[in-house]
Amino acid sequence: MHDEELRALDAHWRAANYLAVGQIYLMGNPLLAEPLRPEHVKPRLLGHWGTSPGLNLVHTHLNRVIGARGQRGLAVWGPGHGGPAVLANAWLEGSYSQTYPDVSRDAAGMGRLFRQFSFPGGVPSHVAPETPGSIHEGGELGYSLSHAYGAAFDHPELLVTCVIGDGEAETGPLAASWHSNKFLDPVHDGAVLPVLHLNGYKIANPTVLARIPEGELDALLRGYGHEPLHVTGDDPFAVHSAMAEAMDTALDRIAGIQAAAREGGERGRPRWPMIVLRTPKGWTGPAEVDGLPVEGTWRAHQVPLAAVRDNPQHLRQLEAWMRSYRPQELFDEDGAPTAQVLACVPEGDLRLGATPYANGGLLLRDLPVPPLERFAVEVDKPGVTLHEPTRILGGLLERVMADTAGRRDFRLVGPDETASNRLDAVYEASGKAWQAEVLPVDENLDRHGRVMEILSEHTCQGWLEGYLLTGRHGLFSCYEAFVHIVDSMVNQHVKWLRTTRKLAWRRPIASLNYLLTSHVWRQDHNGFSHQDPGFIDHILNKAPEVVRVYLPPDANTLLSTAEHVLHSRDHVNVVVAGKQPCFDWLDLDAARAHCARGAGVWQWAGTEDGTREPDVVLACAGDVPTQEVLAAASLIRRHLPELAVRVVNVVDLARLLPKDEHPHGMADPAYDALFTRDKPVIFAYHGYPWLIHRLAYRRTGHAHLHVRGYKEIGTTTTPFDMVVRNDLDRFRLVMDVIDRVPGLAVRAAPVRQLMEDARLRHHAWIREHGTDLPEVAEWTWPGR
Amino acid sequence: MHDEELRALDAHWRAANYLAVGQIYLMGNPLLAEPLRPEHVKPRLLGHWGTSPGLNLVHTHLNRVIGARGQRGLAVWGPGHGGPAVLANAWLEGSYSQTYPDVSRDAAGMGRLFRQFSFPGGVPSHVAPETPGSIHEGGELGYSLSHAYGAAFDHPELLVTCVIGDGEAETGPLAASWHSNKFLDPVHDGAVLPVLHLNGYKIANPTVLARIPEGELDALLRGYGHEPLHVTGDDPFAVHSAMAEAMDTALDRIAGIQAAAREGGERGRPRWPMIVLRTPKGWTGPAEVDGLPVEGTWRAHQVPLAAVRDNPQHLRQLEAWMRSYRPQELFDEDGAPTAQVLACVPEGDLRLGATPYANGGLLLRDLPVPPLERFAVEVDKPGVTLHEPTRILGGLLERVMADTAGRRDFRLVGPDETASNRLDAVYEASGKAWQAEVLPVDENLDRHGRVMEILSEHTCQGWLEGYLLTGRHGLFSCYEAFVHIVDSMVNQHVKWLRTTRKLAWRRPIASLNYLLTSHVWRQDHNGFSHQDPGFIDHILNKAPEVVRVYLPPDANTLLSTAEHVLHSRDHVNVVVAGKQPCFDWLDLDAARAHCARGAGVWQWAGTEDGTREPDVVLACAGDVPTQEVLAAASLIRRHLPELAVRVVNVVDLARLLPKDEHPHGMADPAYDALFTRDKPVIFAYHGYPWLIHRLAYRRTGHAHLHVRGYKEIGTTTTPFDMVVRNDLDRFRLVMDVIDRVPGLAVRAAPVRQLMEDARLRHHAWIREHGTDLPEVAEWTWPGR
Repeated sequence: MHDEELRALDAHWRAANYLAVGQIYLMGNPLLAEPLRPEHVKPRLLGHWGTSPGLNLVHTHLNRVIGARGQRGLAVWGPGHGGPAVLANAWLEGSYSQTYPDVSRDAAGMGRLFRQFSFPGGVPSHVAPETPGSIHEGGELGYSLSHAYGAAFDHPELLVTCVIGDGEAETGPLAASWHSNKFLDPVHDGAVLPVLHLNGYKIANPTVLARIPEGELDALLRGYGHEPLHVTGDDPFAVHSAMAEAMDTALDRIAGIQAAAREGGERGRPRWPMIVLRTPKGWTGPAEVDGLPVEGTWRAHQVPLAAVRDNPQHLRQLEAWMRSYRPQELFDEDGAPTAQVLACVPEGDLRLGATPYANGGLLLRDLPVPPLERFAVEVDKPGVTLHEPTRILGGLLERVMADTAGRRDFRLVGPDETASNRLDAVYEASGKAWQAEVLPVDENLDRHGRVMEILSEHTCQGWLEGYLLTGRHGLFSCYEAFVHIVDSMVNQHVKWLRTTRKLAWRRPIASLNYLLTSHVWRQDHNGFSHQDPGFIDHILNKAPEVVRVYLPPDANTLLSTAEHVLHSRDHVNVVVAGKQPCFDWLDLDAARAHCARGAGVWQWAGTEDGTREPDVVLACAGDVPTQEVLAAASLIRRHLPELAVRVVNVVDLARLLPKDEHPHGMADPAYDALFTRDKPVIFAYHGYPWLIHRLAYRRTGHAHLHVRGYKEIGTTTTPFDMVVRNDLDRFRLVMDVIDRVPGLAVRAAPVRQLMEDARLRHHAWIREHGTDLPEVAEWTWPGR
Repeated sequence: MHDEELRALDAHWRAANYLAVGQIYLMGNPLLAEPLRPEHVKPRLLGHWGTSPGLNLVHTHLNRVIGARGQRGLAVWGPGHGGPAVLANAWLEGSYSQTYPDVSRDAAGMGRLFRQFSFPGGVPSHVAPETPGSIHEGGELGYSLSHAYGAAFDHPELLVTCVIGDGEAETGPLAASWHSNKFLDPVHDGAVLPVLHLNGYKIANPTVLARIPEGELDALLRGYGHEPLHVTGDDPFAVHSAMAEAMDTALDRIAGIQAAAREGGERGRPRWPMIVLRTPKGWTGPAEVDGLPVEGTWRAHQVPLAAVRDNPQHLRQLEAWMRSYRPQELFDEDGAPTAQVLACVPEGDLRLGATPYANGGLLLRDLPVPPLERFAVEVDKPGVTLHEPTRILGGLLERVMADTAGRRDFRLVGPDETASNRLDAVYEASGKAWQAEVLPVDENLDRHGRVMEILSEHTCQGWLEGYLLTGRHGLFSCYEAFVHIVDSMVNQHVKWLRTTRKLAWRRPIASLNYLLTSHVWRQDHNGFSHQDPGFIDHILNKAPEVVRVYLPPDANTLLSTAEHVLHSRDHVNVVVAGKQPCFDWLDLDAARAHCARGAGVWQWAGTEDGTREPDVVLACAGDVPTQEVLAAASLIRRHLPELAVRVVNVVDLARLLPKDEHPHGMADPAYDALFTRDKPVIFAYHGYPWLIHRLAYRRTGHAHLHVRGYKEIGTTTTPFDMVVRNDLDRFRLVMDVIDRVPGLAVRAAPVRQLMEDARLRHHAWIREHGTDLPEVAEWTWPGR
């Protein structure tokens, strides 16, 4: 490389470093036009310097290759707490001012860039939704590489560069996601270029990968399936030179791999290149502060000079540090970057801060969801026929998969459970992505597949997030209990969506859709360890404008729910549905109407005569509770025919919330019309019963609300025994009615005894036979 | 190895395989004394065969080396869904009958062993708390290796063998935990022998690690820091021979490493051996069923022959399969294992099902917690002095660490945050465990350290669980938001404890203690991504006999809480406390008394005169809410002196629950005495406000309860601005009082206006200065 080009790269890097330091420290005098005084410095110094020079280096060199090759690019900054670096680069390339015109590319804008950083009312200290060019919040660590792969899938023209900090590399989700390269199709997918940045330290400790011998690290990365290129140093020009060469080598190899697969028909699994970049933490920052080493140590992690306002020595050191970048060579008198600084910067939407891939809504097309009529089950009479709801959904998903075969903008992800969850019809339209070895006995593996299965919920979630954030559609099917594995990931995605919904320049993206199945009530093979319905509780703590929870009670309501969530935008939708045979309650029209309301009376199931309020409301949410409520209603019909019972089914859980607490919340009059203001409500709920109270505590009738649900009494047993143990069974529900309807206790005592007897019969039968009572196993809805 | 020994090993393996199949299928005719009939077969076939022969192989060979060397051993079965295998081995060695005498080692006991498996009222299909010798539930995958390391720490005499399935190996937590070997001290810790079992398939897919070239896998494992020994095959005798040799080699190397470190003073990081075992899934099971290959494929995962009761061909196949193990050679007429089968089985508590390490309470000693007086802060007057509570706790922990220096039964774990969380005093007593490279600039790294820091919450949690389950003590300090990363892990630990509490033979173990700090209200450096108080909600959904949540409001209450939790048993304790300067409210005596009550009136802070009920209750839980409530109380005292205010502080959140819902729950009269039955209660809470409603909805006064808390309005800003944005600030609380105390609205309108003005003043000030109002920043409790 010519010296001139190296000097230009170095100028860009110095400018970015200068701007990073300025953001952390200054609220005035951004160009150091005068000597630095304490009042130029922010009163609260908040941010992360340590990783910034490394991120700036990668960004500078990415600029060069993107410009030189006209390469479509996206960058994922794993150490995104180095927000000052990414913001500095976006400002330098002009994409920041394009997004936020008041932060102009001049002295005034530089002043605003500095002041707003980590300042109340300003911008977060991390790479965040507010940062142009970002799809990855830089706070919680572990998800950069899976996000990068998600972005690269089905974007064959795209290069996703992913910087992985050596801190993040210690996390489980990151460690697992290295194997994503076994799922990257060199024909239809883009490329991911991991840059493992070893600056040696975390907050207060050395990092593991920086402290194993280079040969061992190299073996590890080759074991992950990569060809590592090592760039090491602390001399800027030597590192620039080595980094430029490594970038060229990596991009050449990627181009070669893609050409071989796309044009040459090569079918082997490629060994993709990656870069190991080893530079000092806080490189070019203060070498020592107060007599302690800082550059190249963990002490450079956040704010190396902490007392700048009060300590004149610190102030002098800060000024010397900033002037060491020679800002007068980098910015003209108006504060604009010089031509030399901008020499490496690409144009237009090749700029990393302006790439449309980071604003996925720009690329998003509506998903073709076929008419549900083609998949719906016929229901002549409710509660007689049985279907596996997720299997019915599988038919719909197969069609979506088939209809996106050309567009390639829909993927189904799951941890090795697609078939277990009865969605295997999708294999007719697409196999499972797989680039590793295939044996003759294997089924449905496909180098070009869009069904993604790896036994890592973290990787599944990260892939899907990256895919959605870059403008595509998808669904995550997961065992209900184990979706808790991604609790913390979904937190961040909800936060992301909450923030982007307020940013006009961010276009809506497809919702993150969960299908939770193999749920708490049907863990016949597994038992207690697989029983946990608490993800619903977790999700409903989050931003109400983003989160939605649906509990369709049968196959057709699941279809209708699926259609809705697949079309929705900027939400996190949680759909809980069973994979075991389940009664069909509603035909498609009724299912659609019911789902549109979200909660409603099942007139045909109750015994109201319409002349007065019912004596009791039997409410249900979830497939198993719905079955038990209907069975209880049929028992009441037989044994207490004079009782006016209303059956209410809730599909959309947020309907129970007050209107001002959730967009789907019900106004009080509507709630009262459904549940009454003063009649007992026996509510059979899929999950933890207190959640229903938490949703409904403001309602007038709340004191009359009695909820049955999962009480953490999990075990290995039959389906009906599970509901009996948790007091959610039909017999107990009838007893609850008798206990709660005023005046019924004495009159209905014999019926109550019948119910108790039935429970005793159950206990005796199951001990003997290990199966459910025939009267339960063979029960169907008797009709009127 | 002699043929005779090989034949004996094979006999043991065949016996274990026979017993595994029998558990999955049979409820009668256990010894096949007569031809198999449909009624001998269970009506519901539930369990996992695929992994069982591999687990049986490892167990058989472990038996041999343990017996031959007198080696103290513990086994962690990652593919613990292969419960039939582990149960089979425990029954063979007699430890099962010793624990459960009714399942005797004879024909009758074998019948019970078979029938109870995965049968209602019987035993779970996984390795579970009920399984003798287990510390690891085999349901959720990912934690076997970190559990194994946790068990090995500070047990220098112990060999922990950990079987890792190739499915589990795809998970993030497992992938991260390979690096645990950089934290294992060959002097004071025992050894971990990972056995990566490649049977090639998960539920429905090939596994990644089985489908990369062996050289790539070998590089990966060497990159993880291991010396792999490969055992591959499907011929039983060849595999027995190779496995025996690999086990001997591995144990010899481990002994060599330990001797070099312990006697030879070797200080380099050892490359520990491990075994890669590659055998067919469902090995020795049906090769084909209904014309499809089963043995060696994913179809062997659960129940290879599914229709045995109805399909005579399946029944015949099952009988042939079971007879292929030649049971008549393995069990005598009474059903007891023959001498040849038992030849490899060790004696007494060397048996893996009888090892005391798997029943940690047997080994547990009380933790020496020093008198709190030595660490408590002096409080002459509440709300004047400030301390960082976690720093005060650090002093106590330093002493605990020092006082356990000889015993080595206490560890502090955390993801690179011990110093950030102000606990760095502990380094005086113990450095940070670290076996990798050390540079001169490093501080507090120690080959023999008991402070554990790796940037993986999963690994931290797994280590600590393993450590506690094998009879030691510990504390996990974590950023509050990111403890959600281990939501799913803690679920399993709570389930474990709920179950073991009911098993008389399981002795109580030390509680799992979390210190959650860097909490939602003080994320000045980070902002929204680091703000989430929902772990409390998550935990309080779990078994009430296990879970506890404490919110000590200051340094001395934190000390008192810490003393309590460090002494407690069989709980999961969540302690939320700040690391930022916080007012001291209570001296040590008051703190102890207050914590003992869990919730109580702070008489000195209120304005009741004792003659009547207060006009309003100001309640608080959490350090920041407590400060705002006290500030609100002081504002009311100044501006509305005639109002009778009661201040209630809640440390133990479960106190708010009814007595019959949690052991710490308060009876209604006590609750009413504290909060009144009909006066407005303004409750300032640390986390999501609706949690308080979910806890208190049954109380008489619930309709008068008004809760302020975190409303998911997170951002990068000052501490006071955070509470303002979430309506938890002192000014808003005073407005809430005025709005809710009957008759106050008009009279107190000017005061309300003052409060509104103060909030406006705040907004203006912060925009200008980026700091909090001086009147807030400098506020102290004014006293009476």
